[in-house]
This record gives sequence, C-alpha cells and structure tokens, in this order.
Amino acid sequence: MSQTISSPLYAAIDLGSNSFHMLVVRHIDGSVQTMAKIKRKVRLAAGLDDSNALSQEAMQRGWDCLSLFAERLQDIPTENIRIVGTATLRTATNVDLFLAKANQILGHDIEVIAGEEEAATIYKGVAHTSGGLGRRLVVDIGGASTELIIGEGFEANALTSLKMGCVTWLERHFKDRQLTQMNFNNAIEAAKATLAPILEQYTDLGWDVCVGASGTVQALQEIMLAQGMDEVITHSKLKRLQKQAMLADHLEELEIEGLTLERALVFPSGLSILIAIFELLEIDSMTLAGGALREGLVYEMVDELRQTDIRARTICSVQARYQLDTQYGQQVSTLASTLLAQCGGERWIEEPQAATLLHTVANLHEIGLTIDFKKGGQHSAYLLQHLDLPGYTRAQKHFIAEVARRYREQLTSLPEQHALSSGSGKRVLRLLRLAVLLSHRRSIDLQPQVQLSAKGDKLTLTIDQKWLNSNPLTAAELELESNRQTDIGWPLTIITK
Amino acid sequence: MSQTISSPLYAAIDLGSNSFHMLVVRHIDGSVQTMAKIKRKVRLAAGLDDSNALSQEAMQRGWDCLSLFAERLQDIPTENIRIVGTATLRTATNVDLFLAKANQILGHDIEVIAGEEEAATIYKGVAHTSGGLGRRLVVDIGGASTELIIGEGFEANALTSLKMGCVTWLERHFKDRQLTQMNFNNAIEAAKATLAPILEQYTDLGWDVCVGASGTVQALQEIMLAQGMDEVITHSKLKRLQKQAMLADHLEELEIEGLTLERALVFPSGLSILIAIFELLEIDSMTLAGGALREGLVYEMVDELRQTDIRARTICSVQARYQLDTQYGQQVSTLASTLLAQCGGERWIEEPQAATLLHTVANLHEIGLTIDFKKGGQHSAYLLQHLDLPGYTRAQKHFIAEVARRYREQLTSLPEQHALSSGSGKRVLRLLRLAVLLSHRRSIDLQPQVQLSAKGDKLTLTIDQKWLNSNPLTAAELELESNRQTDIGWPLTIITK
Repeated sequence: MSQTISSPLYAAIDLGSNSFHMLVVRHIDGSVQTMAKIKRKVRLAAGLDDSNALSQEAMQRGWDCLSLFAERLQDIPTENIRIVGTATLRTATNVDLFLAKANQILGHDIEVIAGEEEAATIYKGVAHTSGGLGRRLVVDIGGASTELIIGEGFEANALTSLKMGCVTWLERHFKDRQLTQMNFNNAIEAAKATLAPILEQYTDLGWDVCVGASGTVQALQEIMLAQGMDEVITHSKLKRLQKQAMLADHLEELEIEGLTLERALVFPSGLSILIAIFELLEIDSMTLAGGALREGLVYEMVDELRQTDIRARTICSVQARYQLDTQYGQQVSTLASTLLAQCGGERWIEEPQAATLLHTVANLHEIGLTIDFKKGGQHSAYLLQHLDLPGYTRAQKHFIAEVARRYREQLTSLPEQHALSSGSGKRVLRLLRLAVLLSHRRSIDLQPQVQLSAKGDKLTLTIDQKWLNSNPLTAAELELESNRQTDIGWPLTIITK
Repeated sequence: MSQTISSPLYAAIDLGSNSFHMLVVRHIDGSVQTMAKIKRKVRLAAGLDDSNALSQEAMQRGWDCLSLFAERLQDIPTENIRIVGTATLRTATNVDLFLAKANQILGHDIEVIAGEEEAATIYKGVAHTSGGLGRRLVVDIGGASTELIIGEGFEANALTSLKMGCVTWLERHFKDRQLTQMNFNNAIEAAKATLAPILEQYTDLGWDVCVGASGTVQALQEIMLAQGMDEVITHSKLKRLQKQAMLADHLEELEIEGLTLERALVFPSGLSILIAIFELLEIDSMTLAGGALREGLVYEMVDELRQTDIRARTICSVQARYQLDTQYGQQVSTLASTLLAQCGGERWIEEPQAATLLHTVANLHEIGLTIDFKKGGQHSAYLLQHLDLPGYTRAQKHFIAEVARRYREQLTSLPEQHALSSGSGKRVLRLLRLAVLLSHRRSIDLQPQVQLSAKGDKLTLTIDQKWLNSNPLTAAELELESNRQTDIGWPLTIITK
C-alpha cells in the first residue's frame, strides 16, 4: 500500500481593487487541488478620494478582511505564501499607512506589484490552466486596471496594464447609477481612448485565440449558460446583454437571468470595457480562462509544474492520481491514431482538435473503473466532466466525457443536439470503441494487425481470420460491435482475409 | 510526481453448475478493482443424465465458454490465476473427460474443490467484503449446491455444503414448468428435508446477522429495489414474491418487476430453497453479501489483503487511492467522537452503527475535493455512493454519502423519507459539520477547546471568547452555522465564556 502523506498547502492572496481573494491549494501528483477559496468584496478602489488617498473606512474594510485571511495563513509554511496588491494599492498615496498595519495583521509582507508584473503573472496563470494552440490574447478586467497580454505557450510577447477597471469605470461613467445609452456610450468611448495607444502594437503582433479572465468574463459566461447559449463570448452577445441591461433604468433594478447579486454592481461598467476591447481590437470570439492572477502566483511557487505541454501534464497527472494503467492507455491511444490515419486522418475527422481529444480520451477512458466496474462508463463521464483539467475548455471536457461514457457496451442513437452527433464526435467515438475492443488483452504483442478504411460514415475493418480463430472472445465481440454500430446507422463491416 | 505503474492483474474463474464466471481484478493500494467480468450461462447441471454423466452437448458448452476465457487468461501471470469447479463437477462421473480437454484449452489446471472448501472460500469472500458485527450466517444458493456457513470475523465455525441448488431443484420440482402451489410446496418441503440434518448444530451455534450470496439473493435484491422496497430480505417479502410468481401459470410467462430474463428460469426454484431456509432456521432478515466464491479466491491470492478490520482497511485504502489528508481526517474524526461523547454517546445518537459511520465519513468527507472544489460535497456523495466499500452495506454507503454531501455550506430541510431525517442521521450530520468547522485550520494545535451539550435536538456549544477574538474567520462561520442549523429546526446555540 502506498504511503499517504499530507501534501503541502500553498496560499495565494490578491488584494484587488474590487475584492480581496484567498486561494488555498494542495499540490498532488502534478495537479493543484483547491482546498479553500475565500473572497470578500472590500471595494478598495471605491475608497480612493479625489487626491487618491484611501479613506479610513476603506482601509478598515481591508484590514478586517485580512484578519480573516490571517487565521487561515497560520497553517501554511511561509515559503508557500504569496500576497500581492494591485492597481488601487499602486495608486493610493497613503499606501504605506495601509500596508504597515496590513503586514502586521497577516504576519507576512504584501508585495505591491507593478502593472507589468501583474500582467506577466496573469499570463502565467492563463498559460498553465488553458489549452489551445497558437498565439493568444489574454484580457483581464480588474477593479481598477485592465491587463492585456499577447503570448504563445509560456512566453509573453506584449504586456500592458491600463488604468481602467470595472470599479473605476462605475464611479466615472455610471456615477448616477443610470443604465442609459449615453452612460454606456461614454463608458465605451472612454475605454477605447484608453486602449488607443496599444492598438497598433497589438494588431501588428496579432493572435489566434482570445481568452478572458476575471470576474466580468466569469459573470458573462454564467449568464450565457443560464440563458442557454454556448460558452463562446462574441460581440453580438455582448451587445444583446447591453440591451438587456438597458431595460432597467437604474442599476439597482438590474435583472438579467444568470447574473448574481454580488456581480451586478460592476457588471455594466465591466461590460462597457469589454465591448470597447472587442470593437477596437476586432475580436471575433473569446473563451473563459481556467485561471489568472492567483493561479499564476501558485504555479510560480510550485517548481515542479513548470512544464511546457499543459495537456500532456494534465493527462499524466490524472493517470498518476487515479493510478490508471498508463501502458494500456498508450496502447489504445496509439491504435486509435493508427486507425484514424488509415481512415484519412484529419481530413476524415473534419475538426483538427478532435484528434487531440481522441488521444486524451484513449488515455483516460478507464478512469471510471476506479469507482466501480458496474456503470464504469457513466463514472468516467462524471469524473472527466467535473475534474479540473488544465488545457481543456468546458466544451472539450464535455466532449471527452461523452465519448468516455460510451467506450464499451451498448450504443444508442444520439439525439440531434448531442455533443457527439457532429461528424467528428461520432467518428472519434467509433474509433475509440474499436481501439478499446482490439486492445482488450492489454498487451501490444497480443493485438491483431488490422486495416480500417472509411467511405464517409461507412467503415470496413479487415482482420486476419487465423487470428480471429485463436481469439474467439474478440471475434464474438467484434461481431457484436459491428451489429451495434450498424444498428444505429453507422455501418461497420468486418472482413476477414 | 509519483510513479504510475501497471499493477498486477488477478483472475478467478468459477465453473458453476448454472454459469461459468470469470473475474479479472487489479490490486491497488489495498483495494481490488474489477477490470472485467465475463459470464456465460453454461447450465452444466442440466446436462447430467440419470447416471450422473455429463452429456456431450453440456461439455461442449463448457469448453466453448472456456476458450473465450482462455483468450483473456494469457495476459495474466500463472500464479495470479485460480480456477475452480464446484458441485456438478464434483458429481459428474465422466469429469475426467471434461477436465482433460478443459485444462488443455485453458492452459491452466482446474481444481474441483470439495463442498467444504467451497463453503470456506465463500466465507472468506463474504468476510472480506461485508461489514457487520457479531456472528454471521452465510447462505449461498448455487446451481447444484447450497452452502451454509456460520462464522465470526474471518473465522468460520461451521461449514456445510448441501446437494441442492436452483438448477437441480428446477429439474426436480418444476420439471413441468408450472408455477403451482403444489410445485412450490414440494420444492420447499424437499429443501427443508435436505436442511434438517444441520438444523440442530446451526441453531445451537446461533448468529447475529444473516448474509446471502449468489444469483438468487442478488436477483431478489434487484426485484425489491425495482419495486421500491428497501434492501432487507424478510420472510414476508419472500412469500409476497412467491404469490407474484404464481400469478403466471407457466414459468415462461413469469413477469415480475425487476426480474431479468436471464435470472427468470431458476428464480422459482431458488426462491423455494430460500423460503425453506428462512422458515426452518427462523431467519428474521438477510442482506446481500458484497462477494462470495470468486472474491474469496481473489482475496486468498492477494497476500496483503489479509487484515482483520475490513472497515479500517477500506478507509485506509480509499484515503491512499485518493491521497486524502489522513492527519486531517483523524483530527475531524477524533473531534467528532469527542463531541458525540459530550452529548451522551450512543444513548443520544440512538443507533449503535451511527458512531462507526460518523467515524467513516469524518475520515472521507473531503474525497469530493479531489474532483473539484466547486460542488465538493456533491462529488463526495457521488464517489461514496458508487465506490465499492467493503464492509459497508448499500444502505450504509447511502447514509455516508448523504452526510458527506452536506458537510459544509448551506443546509436545507430534509424531506421526511430522507436517509438522514431519522434521529441518528440528523445528529451525525450536525456533529460532522461542527467538527469540520472547528478543524478548518487543519492542525490539532490550532483547534479550540469546546464543550457541546444536548437536550434532545437542542445543542449548545460553549467556546472561549478569547479564542474566538483571535480567530475571527471561525467566529463568523460559527455564527453562520448556528443560524443555518437553527433555521431548519435544529436549534444550535453558541455560548462564550
């Protein structure tokens, strides 16, 4: 029996302009596992007066919150703690007064980090938790600053921190709390003016995908999911939400399905900034990042996690944590990609990401067996859907989970709206099932030579008759599988030679 | 990152009188994880002629099945394989003919084990997979034999194998396939006559709990659950099922909700034997065992699993596999039982098993965090409900899961029929929540001294005011918890001194 250890805890605290956040994690087998999240809406930025001094009340709100955090920090080794302050603390003229007492309460020093360092850390948090190929634009709208970063892999090519945020924009452009066209227009135009200086540099660099972090983007995704839309943020959806918001005259009356009370106050200002960014940078679509500043702080502390291929790290970590049979996973994955290549590769499977997802699910499909053999597929789906899988978006996790749910046993027709009913979904599933069936003896030496050919959805598998004769269990299962796929309209013919 | 290994496979094959079964498992961290189950209904016993010779057809069915199994056996080390034959092979006069070819097909030798050895192995399988205190009576109704064992812990005190089974009783008492009162009466009386010789010995030894294994009892439990009953088998439920069965004139017309086709043929004969056992031995109630013969074979092979406290082994194994924080689990468990003792111990909690279940859930409640922090309680409930937890019955797993689901955050009123709405369920949950809240700093040194007193459902927690002052996060959470419990009618008062 392997030894069970109490793995070390890490804490990252971020003293933001809108909220203070504390994140406590454990590091296990290449994963960080969240143990506690504590958040208090301190609204520090709202406490700056005209001469940029923090009011006594705002400082007191901050200190009160920190004494809550302090209680939890005592259990964590000093070297595993990072505490950073951002835009408002960069700006406040009386920051020393605030920090002196704050450091004393925490028993640890707060670092007020420069905007550029904040942007770099955000980028690390995004790079460690989000997949996707090519160059990415990262947008993080905070309470008093907005960070924009362009990078590739773990390398940031451009780092910008702008003095505009959802709290400062609320106070500046929605001071009367009216949700009028004019207020929105002013907020959007002011944001564009703030962005203007970086436009040329960013457009020249360019990007392939755009990722958003922070509360504003999180709130948008929650709203879209609550309203039955998909997870991708587009300009037209943002404009639709602006219209929905303007149905209320006054901020206090704002009612949008899926918008929580705590996010409502800064929602219109954050939305305005995001619309400005979409319009000025001509962004097509944006997805939510898996992490940002706090995750960046954590990943900086945990040395072992500095690896380059997030998805490979995720697969490896899940295999280790669930003690999956990695040799077998490799066998199924290799066979599945051989079958895919025989069918014509990406041309046949249509979507380039699908090959990567096939590789992932081939390595992880047995995870449900760690819960129970009975309903193993259902358990695999549950775990893959809910596990934090850095490098995969929510939709990709859903796709993997639905394939894994069906890796063996009965097959039923998929409803039209199903995640797998697209061409690539169905084909990934069919290849996985064949690869699993042909690998069931869990040894490459005992695996048959096969040839799979595809004409559209019609599959033909050629296999040696002599091999089948000496492997009657596989022969029976292959026949059954041919019937199962064919019965639901996915023709599969077995030919022996 | 810990190394991922391909842990060794084990196979147990049992050539029963009704079906041949193959079980393939992996051994991981003190658990056996099922990797494959293959079953073929060979109905060997039905192939015995009047002079107890196996027909050529029956032998051929057996050999065909074994050649399927043989394919799968090649991947497994010889020393990790056990293959046993039972009643029909003990009886068949031409067994050598069958075995010669069977051994050749398998590439491994089949052991035809004596009835007493079968009973002893079944007992091991039950003892390793089922909890429960005191002396237990184990009943396993096979195709051509029925084993009855009395034992305590891992020690069997009485071992009996009787020549009566659901296939032989079918051929003898339901030969005309009529579900008449007379056939049932004959079958039941004949079973009683077979049981008579052991009655005195078994009654003298006595038992505290009764556990059933094998397909007949499994089928009964499936039927009862499908019909909305609880999992406990009683005499009156058996007689009700006999009545339901007699509604069909003919065996082929048998329709009972929850009875699967493959079990239908031998259901009336198995039911008759079970009724006879209940009546003659005056059994009050029976639950389904977690395992029997095949599990006994596997546990005999895996040396490491020979430990005495099944539940301790299960907790330990789950903690290891999911890398839970064992020190923290111990802390919560110790605090929870201190709180329970302060309230009056088992007198207050009413049900003696509840203290053990409190200990279990205190050690395992954080398991859901390994999936994700968000909805951690829901994930804990999913895992604890579905994991194979040797030593816990289905109802106990459900209880543990429902407590773990609510270990933190909001509390809502429980519907009347809920597993936790009984006195003990509610009280276990309340103690766990308090223990978790007071242990949130995850270190015994940082845990406050408290005194909990109970008057019925009214709880009063006394805690030091100075400690609360220096732990404002806990203070805030305790106040919230007091409101949450009180709001749903479970009064909790916090007193400081």
